[in-house]
Amino acid sequence: MNSKIQALRNQMKVLNIQGMIISNPVNIKYLTGLTEEGTFLITPKDNIFITDSRYLEAVNTFLTIDQEIISYNLKNLNKHDYEAFFSECENVGFEESYVTYEMYKIYLQTYQVNLIETEGIIELHRMVKDEEEIENIKKACNITDKCFEYIRGFIRVGMTEKEIAFEIEKYMKINGADGLAFDTIVASGSNSSMPHAVPTDRKIEENDIIQFDFGCRVNGYCSDFSRVLFVGIITDEMRRVYEFVLKEYEYIVKNLSEGIDVKDLLKRCEKDYQDNEYELLHSFGHSLGLDIHEEPILSSKHDFKLKKDMLLTVEPGVYIPGKFGIRLEDTILINKSGCNTLTKSAIGIKQIF
Amino acid sequence: MNSKIQALRNQMKVLNIQGMIISNPVNIKYLTGLTEEGTFLITPKDNIFITDSRYLEAVNTFLTIDQEIISYNLKNLNKHDYEAFFSECENVGFEESYVTYEMYKIYLQTYQVNLIETEGIIELHRMVKDEEEIENIKKACNITDKCFEYIRGFIRVGMTEKEIAFEIEKYMKINGADGLAFDTIVASGSNSSMPHAVPTDRKIEENDIIQFDFGCRVNGYCSDFSRVLFVGIITDEMRRVYEFVLKEYEYIVKNLSEGIDVKDLLKRCEKDYQDNEYELLHSFGHSLGLDIHEEPILSSKHDFKLKKDMLLTVEPGVYIPGKFGIRLEDTILINKSGCNTLTKSAIGIKQIF
Repeated sequence: MNSKIQALRNQMKVLNIQGMIISNPVNIKYLTGLTEEGTFLITPKDNIFITDSRYLEAVNTFLTIDQEIISYNLKNLNKHDYEAFFSECENVGFEESYVTYEMYKIYLQTYQVNLIETEGIIELHRMVKDEEEIENIKKACNITDKCFEYIRGFIRVGMTEKEIAFEIEKYMKINGADGLAFDTIVASGSNSSMPHAVPTDRKIEENDIIQFDFGCRVNGYCSDFSRVLFVGIITDEMRRVYEFVLKEYEYIVKNLSEGIDVKDLLKRCEKDYQDNEYELLHSFGHSLGLDIHEEPILSSKHDFKLKKDMLLTVEPGVYIPGKFGIRLEDTILINKSGCNTLTKSAIGIKQIF
Repeated sequence: MNSKIQALRNQMKVLNIQGMIISNPVNIKYLTGLTEEGTFLITPKDNIFITDSRYLEAVNTFLTIDQEIISYNLKNLNKHDYEAFFSECENVGFEESYVTYEMYKIYLQTYQVNLIETEGIIELHRMVKDEEEIENIKKACNITDKCFEYIRGFIRVGMTEKEIAFEIEKYMKINGADGLAFDTIVASGSNSSMPHAVPTDRKIEENDIIQFDFGCRVNGYCSDFSRVLFVGIITDEMRRVYEFVLKEYEYIVKNLSEGIDVKDLLKRCEKDYQDNEYELLHSFGHSLGLDIHEEPILSSKHDFKLKKDMLLTVEPGVYIPGKFGIRLEDTILINKSGCNTLTKSAIGIKQIF
């Protein structure tokens, strides 16, 4: 049995649950490596993956004896089989933040058990990454950096945001990514004032600002990265905003390390925003891993202490409605005495052409 | 107010619910056209979209007075505002098949209402498409057909499945698709025996079979399409399986029309599978629209009558474990006296080279 399943079993004892129904495919991938559709059960005796005929061959090819996971075909299980899985359990945990209200009721009926909320025990484990997970994220960050370098040379006035976004995605997929971390953002001119802009047919013009936000996956693990490029003239207002965002970015990164309470750190940043009358449209960052957004969130509303081997994005942004926006972002690894920036592209003001 | 929101309001009266909380982004897009994150409330007096600072500018740019939708910024709402929305309601509906158990409990606390399951009333409306929706799907099918024609000329021995899948995705995006309907399947040789194979680094070899399954989106609406190509020699076994799958496909398509009970139709197909000792690994098809998988499902376990302007895929498949698989699939529009195939690529046995 692998260490992740073992750790979960230990944690289940603390919560007084003797079994668990795991439905979130990201948690199933984390615990087992399996990416096929199905439900993973931790029973007192066994680790069981229930899938269907579409996936059974792939699942059985993937599983080895060492993993101690038994696969079942859904259609071969009857009412009594389901009830037997947890027959010795007083309480069975489920993922209340993933399972729908409808599925909750179906689970109650199918397994005939006392279902208990587990308050994200698997997600809590996922917050601190192991060596292999960090290695995957480093690879994803490296592809992302190379992509940004490539794309700076690729952009021409007259290209559309969509064309540039497509080229970014193509570059990452051809150069080792197994997928995108999220939909690529390329927002030019006034489109950049929307933090989650979707690439449009707008063509790049002289003196445009271009906001980029993209990332890729390696073995399912994400990178996340934002930069701004200027096509020609940079107005005084843009320069002022850029320098403000960069100052906030540098202040946060300088202070991140194991043991830090982010709440205090970010209150100071929020005050800077207020003093400059900039509206704070989103948090200062978030963790990431198999999901692009994981806990913890970098916000003064969230109270937590950083641990070694947590991953975070730092991404302050300022948006001037109808005019432009600037966001700078890196993927960052927390260590004992500070942090390492895993996306390494230069972060100063950059003009192209 | 548009006809879709009006139809929902009428249906709500039948269910004796005076308000509804709509959380599923696909249902929100269907009802309002909005694609930004948020929650859509139908209250006795108003249609309300609650979003956050990241999306507010985009939402307000999109909404027109005709739509009669009021937008709110999450952070400006307090406890009393939430309680006021449904203060006159005896029952408020929610989407039990989308809302998590955790969100259900938060809704109860936030809105202080009697929450009622709505059994997919919005999804039921979505089953029959209007003219504009059908037009979008026709466009997506047309791009898909053109892509298949292009890709037949593109493939060479020695290319990997991933390279071919990437070229398919690039072609569709460049030629008018706003996204993929689902992850593209290109499965060659024995990889084709898995219905949901993920493209690998396996290189196309002489005498390979290649299974394709792909589709794209236009304005969010999906196409879905599968074909098989043979690189060189076709074995007798492959030919036998292909002809069987094609016969099943043709039998189903010939019999689809408004008023047909699919259960009876598909029982005959299932018997054909049994008689030939082929295992049935998945259903014969599914509806599609803003989601790639919508109700109804083409399976003898689902009892329903077809209606005009429903969309369906027909996709019989046979999989010989460890050897090969063959699936043929088109996107099909039901009409009064039959059906129209919207993906129009030829479906007979096709060799390349």
